Amino acid sequence: MELLIEDGHVYTDGEAVEADVGVRDGRIAEVGDVRDADRVLDASGCLVLPGMVNAHTHASMSLLRGYADDLPLDRWLEEHIWPIEAHLEPQDIRVGAELAAVEMIRTGTTAFADMYFGMDEVADAVDVSGLRASLGYGIITVGKDDDEAREELNEGVGFVREYDGAGDGRISTMLCPHAPYTCDEQTLREAARAARDEGVTLHTHLSETDGEVRDSVDSHAERPPAYLESLDFFDGDVYVAHGVHLDGDEIEMLANRGVGVAHCPSANMKLASGTAPVAEMLDAGMTVGIGTDGPASNNTLDMFKETRHTALVAKSREGDASVVPAREALDAATRGGAELLGTQSGVIAEGRPADIAVVDLDAPHLTPRHSLVSHAVYAANGGDVVHTVVDGEVLMEDGHVETVDAGRVTAEAEERARRLAERTEAEA
Amino acid sequence: MELLIEDGHVYTDGEAVEADVGVRDGRIAEVGDVRDADRVLDASGCLVLPGMVNAHTHASMSLLRGYADDLPLDRWLEEHIWPIEAHLEPQDIRVGAELAAVEMIRTGTTAFADMYFGMDEVADAVDVSGLRASLGYGIITVGKDDDEAREELNEGVGFVREYDGAGDGRISTMLCPHAPYTCDEQTLREAARAARDEGVTLHTHLSETDGEVRDSVDSHAERPPAYLESLDFFDGDVYVAHGVHLDGDEIEMLANRGVGVAHCPSANMKLASGTAPVAEMLDAGMTVGIGTDGPASNNTLDMFKETRHTALVAKSREGDASVVPAREALDAATRGGAELLGTQSGVIAEGRPADIAVVDLDAPHLTPRHSLVSHAVYAANGGDVVHTVVDGEVLMEDGHVETVDAGRVTAEAEERARRLAERTEAEA
Repeated sequence: MELLIEDGHVYTDGEAVEADVGVRDGRIAEVGDVRDADRVLDASGCLVLPGMVNAHTHASMSLLRGYADDLPLDRWLEEHIWPIEAHLEPQDIRVGAELAAVEMIRTGTTAFADMYFGMDEVADAVDVSGLRASLGYGIITVGKDDDEAREELNEGVGFVREYDGAGDGRISTMLCPHAPYTCDEQTLREAARAARDEGVTLHTHLSETDGEVRDSVDSHAERPPAYLESLDFFDGDVYVAHGVHLDGDEIEMLANRGVGVAHCPSANMKLASGTAPVAEMLDAGMTVGIGTDGPASNNTLDMFKETRHTALVAKSREGDASVVPAREALDAATRGGAELLGTQSGVIAEGRPADIAVVDLDAPHLTPRHSLVSHAVYAANGGDVVHTVVDGEVLMEDGHVETVDAGRVTAEAEERARRLAERTEAEA
Repeated sequence: MELLIEDGHVYTDGEAVEADVGVRDGRIAEVGDVRDADRVLDASGCLVLPGMVNAHTHASMSLLRGYADDLPLDRWLEEHIWPIEAHLEPQDIRVGAELAAVEMIRTGTTAFADMYFGMDEVADAVDVSGLRASLGYGIITVGKDDDEAREELNEGVGFVREYDGAGDGRISTMLCPHAPYTCDEQTLREAARAARDEGVTLHTHLSETDGEVRDSVDSHAERPPAYLESLDFFDGDVYVAHGVHLDGDEIEMLANRGVGVAHCPSANMKLASGTAPVAEMLDAGMTVGIGTDGPASNNTLDMFKETRHTALVAKSREGDASVVPAREALDAATRGGAELLGTQSGVIAEGRPADIAVVDLDAPHLTPRHSLVSHAVYAANGGDVVHTVVDGEVLMEDGHVETVDAGRVTAEAEERARRLAERTEAEA
């Protein structure tokens, strides 16, 4: 074996069993009693989980973490986020993605989906970090003329062609028309067609706010899902983010069309968008993953927080403590997200990519061990992760990130964020 | 000075300012430029916060963490929690409280309010740990005859008389009739009178679930607040836990009577009780503190999680991202809780008890530093706390708990929890 994760409690088939995990050629070769390997990670007294999959984020927004909070969505965007984003330089986007990568590795996230601009910088940061990612350029055509709109789509398609399969195959790509309300009809239709032609996933924001639904009815005489359906948007491999304001018929339609959803509970609460009907989505058979959304509206990339929220918010919303039990939430955070990203990771089983997060259980808040699955969802933090492995490569051992210089990245992020805020405020 | 917390960003008057904190005779003697002290805690690159105050918990239930989850409240209590609680031995309660104390110290909680049984064990654990606490025996008379009910009340009063002022004054006591639905009318009335006579706070669970409100109307022809008001319950120093199902008139009545509330968002979500109208409570002028509730319904004692939830859940509930901004949530978790517990801590200012939590900001998820108050609420974890101080005594430095042997406690808790579950299941 190339790598042995030794003597842990391995989460597999919904429960934690004592086993070693052996890795060969980047894949899980054996779950059981494994001996001899080139490298050994000690997992005694640890819970060995499939790596968390962050199914929806905007990683480079880590540079805007805490820049503006506690504001209504429109003022937050128009008065703060868009003005500062207009001053982002390519190296800011690069450093923001590196900072996010370090945070994700430290908190046990092994794969993420990202939609933003300057995506070549994000892809390079992913490549170096060793993470797995599904990346797409966020196509926005609102306020643009036809030529500019075509350029936006071309940028998205160009990124797909250049980067799909990059990073030794760890990088896949998506086509990402940002939202039905930020793209014109023709672009939405053509982006969907281009995704099918290129053989990549289509990803967009959908029904995030009540206002978005009302505006769609005003503009298109249809709610957002019906509007997109009329544009043949759901004909290929598609998943959406949020889905807070989907009704029962829409959930059924999306489930029947094989459309998945990335649920982002913290951001939905922080921006007062509402709470998504996750229990209904799961019941309908939709593939549900979990996302942090951007770190400016969360404000972390800690998937353990989101997994806990997924269970808690669903119970509160439905008035039923039995909905979305720990195992369902954990499976959404791992296997569900992996399915949305189109990767075989998210499950610890022979033949699967070795994307693994090891949680140290030797902590008062993880004592006693009545149920390790309960602890993973209700009690653990991202900070409890000690080892992170992607594609069989060790990205972190004993809390030390090996692929990225965390000290250099945080110092550079701090400095670049300060200058970015100064540039933005000088112009305001 | 006895103690100097050197070179941090000190949270005072709603913002973080660069300063040292000097401590003499257990109190904050100076916030500014302090030199020379017997002991120095390095706070450079750190946020210096008032210690978190957990305003409602049942600490010894840490031994039941993860024992049963994802169940409706009635089945959770009747089929799992009450049966296992019936097998708790005094040493279990002691070790549960010690485990909770270690977790609280590690996550920056410096004071907590606790209502349970076997409270002499809890008090002893608090004494040794160095924490500050307000403790009360949970009086329950449902299913008991008059003599037994009187014994329950006497147990509560006896605990107050024996332990008020214990632990070098760090322990105060409360009278805690468990809830209007678990105590008879006479006990509720007499407990309230006894609290006034003894000069201690009265604390109870109130309007936690919709079912409780309906049952009260059925049994007493009044909703719980009006029922308690008819028993002169609110004539003294009183605060309640939960208040999920308080209506606007009830909030106004309680605010006018000076009644405070301990808000427990995680437990309310996890048990599907609902979401409390915290923004309304704050607007009405109620003193709002934050509690984790017991670790079997949370499942941690991490007040950073609850503080974040307090802000997020309020925004989601009100559909307004501007309600309960970061500062209000942080103040509720510190000053608000301290007011409920009747301690002068919860604020970093000269003359206040030196109850302090120091958060290390040198972490990717706390980078960049646009706003440290935002980070404290939206991005930090209890695990980011490096030093914890109570009454000027250092309980933890650089993550090492000095007053309690964390290794001994977690090992003993693990072993006792295993035997407790075995005893319970052998009888089932």
